Amino acid sequence: MSVTYPLGFVASGVASGIKPSRRKDMALVATSDWHAAAAAATFTQNLAAAAPVVVSRQNLTASAGQVAAVLLTSGNANAATGVEGEAAAKHAVEALAAVAGVHPSQILICSTGLIGIPWPVEKALEGIPRAHGELAGGEEAGLSAAEAIMTTDTFAKTAVNEVGSVRFGGIAKGAAMIAPNMATMLAVVTTDAKATSEQLARVLGHAVEMSFNRITIDGCTSTNDTVVIMASGASRQELSDEELTAGVLAVCDSLASQIVFDAEGSTKLIRVTCTGAETEDDALAIARKVAESSLVKCSFFGKDPYWGRVISEVGTAGVDLDMTQVSVAYGGITVYANLVEMGYDREAVGRVMEGREIDLEVTVGDGAASATVITADLTPAYIAENMRTS
Amino acid sequence: MSVTYPLGFVASGVASGIKPSRRKDMALVATSDWHAAAAAATFTQNLAAAAPVVVSRQNLTASAGQVAAVLLTSGNANAATGVEGEAAAKHAVEALAAVAGVHPSQILICSTGLIGIPWPVEKALEGIPRAHGELAGGEEAGLSAAEAIMTTDTFAKTAVNEVGSVRFGGIAKGAAMIAPNMATMLAVVTTDAKATSEQLARVLGHAVEMSFNRITIDGCTSTNDTVVIMASGASRQELSDEELTAGVLAVCDSLASQIVFDAEGSTKLIRVTCTGAETEDDALAIARKVAESSLVKCSFFGKDPYWGRVISEVGTAGVDLDMTQVSVAYGGITVYANLVEMGYDREAVGRVMEGREIDLEVTVGDGAASATVITADLTPAYIAENMRTS
Repeated sequence: MSVTYPLGFVASGVASGIKPSRRKDMALVATSDWHAAAAAATFTQNLAAAAPVVVSRQNLTASAGQVAAVLLTSGNANAATGVEGEAAAKHAVEALAAVAGVHPSQILICSTGLIGIPWPVEKALEGIPRAHGELAGGEEAGLSAAEAIMTTDTFAKTAVNEVGSVRFGGIAKGAAMIAPNMATMLAVVTTDAKATSEQLARVLGHAVEMSFNRITIDGCTSTNDTVVIMASGASRQELSDEELTAGVLAVCDSLASQIVFDAEGSTKLIRVTCTGAETEDDALAIARKVAESSLVKCSFFGKDPYWGRVISEVGTAGVDLDMTQVSVAYGGITVYANLVEMGYDREAVGRVMEGREIDLEVTVGDGAASATVITADLTPAYIAENMRTS
Repeated sequence: MSVTYPLGFVASGVASGIKPSRRKDMALVATSDWHAAAAAATFTQNLAAAAPVVVSRQNLTASAGQVAAVLLTSGNANAATGVEGEAAAKHAVEALAAVAGVHPSQILICSTGLIGIPWPVEKALEGIPRAHGELAGGEEAGLSAAEAIMTTDTFAKTAVNEVGSVRFGGIAKGAAMIAPNMATMLAVVTTDAKATSEQLARVLGHAVEMSFNRITIDGCTSTNDTVVIMASGASRQELSDEELTAGVLAVCDSLASQIVFDAEGSTKLIRVTCTGAETEDDALAIARKVAESSLVKCSFFGKDPYWGRVISEVGTAGVDLDMTQVSVAYGGITVYANLVEMGYDREAVGRVMEGREIDLEVTVGDGAASATVITADLTPAYIAENMRTS
């Protein structure tokens, strides 16, 4: 189950023809009766924000955070496409609004795919009535929407959660160009909680900061990143900020981990945790520096516990540290402490390095703060996937 | 010619046995008569600075910038080796000082190679008398020293220059773990100018900032980076700061470019230039963000002029820009301007992408500031070289 798990939502996924392969490339997530639900969104901070990001920002403001549906397309990012790209995105939104009988400002739009190629709006216009016609509740419809936003993803990413009887659901797409400093992918989160758009904005900002902004694949921040949350209110229950955050964060955490697990060409998911820091910002800076290191990522691909590279990254994270207090552990086995390599069970560490998911822990002192950044290994397959667009 | 081109210097390169392969692994650059020459150095800013960096910093301070020789070893970085590593580096310096009859503080030491493995000081002690015995002037001796500091380098890096009748020479080693924010490799620059250590420090700092700190291979800053400059005074000529900088910078520029040209696994050298910025810091931030992008680097390996990724990096460089003013050119051919792809000669751009060296120019407005960062492409061979240490 996914976005259709909370009460009051329908979804669909169709092939509009934007992808020449004729695979599914258009998803729709809407409230069951097209009523405008409270919504919020976080968008890429890239100055080269794509046309759909520009249009969605405008609509979210114009509707005062009241959204009936999110239209998502894959195969072409509609980014770096100028004023024509923006007009095309608006045209698609208006077409959907006409079919559904709502105001265009109550529809958000997201696109993902290649940058710089004119967006085939005529294909989108063909697909929109079908996507509208196939809207349905239930597991299959949600999964179909998740499939329709995939690009180089190898599996559809879905998540659900409950807080009391309030439900949460989500879909996402990732693959490459995933970095911190914003949503860096597309995701739609739904809940049947009763909430205001202001509460959703507060909660989503925090949840994104703690989840999507703590994964990194290649340090690149995309032009199209968007996370949208909609609250149908169908459960008739209001939640505190803390409860709502817990509900949303679990969905975002799951989707974020799935994105790294499915990172382009990757063979390993690595959780880099920094503990013992003075502040959470320090812990995050250190974990991020290690997680973004090409050399560290190469070592994980080679199953090589080369802690020297980890130490080198820790020393250049821009955090003032007493290096005599730094230790490094793979899967709970400490390999470095007190400035030198420890005696340790090399076979046991070897088994840790064989794993599909690996915990790398860096302790930097006896401070109370910690942070985790999730990354993937760097592999020849990543390069093969990214060396040419065609 | 290289470090022995300026008057008053001798050099040597021998195999001490630090490298199990028995290839050359120990270089010595000294003044001809072992007199203490004015010297300066820039060191890594990594908090996990290696033992030789710690010892060289101490000696440079203790000798008030008066240095008779630099001992350089390859094959083992003597980094993350604790107090024993520091004692070993000091031991080697003292052994050389005894052989040469100078005070240990007049000798600097640099090491490069694997991190975290005890430094085989007994091998170094065997090599030192031989390195001392083989010291000579002339081209062959300088080249031998350049060869002895190679690790995964595929060719020895040397450079010379003249300002009037004052000579300059240099050797360097690079390969991987090259990033901005410090010297990020080993280099020794010599000159027969008459200079104080204070003038050398001023000039070297500026020259390193403009050369070695503007190349990037993988964004990683090593534990051992050191650039040393020594002035023998043998030409009896003093130069102004401007003249001395010009002389040193040309040597540093040449060595820095050679390091990128020989970057691990690379097939292309890419000069990323940002022009039209308001400030040089802005231009540098933009050029660096593009040059460090894994996705951009993958595209160059694939010979794909995927300007969309360039634009995306420009938009996340942390510089406030009017994106309507941004244009992108490959080899002088503009492919993107006014927010959209331009009509351009695709065959001509295809020929540019076939080149061993490529110019990528990003114009961001009509400001007067510009900056260039030199990088290499990201290839499967880089990963193969870095996935395992053994």
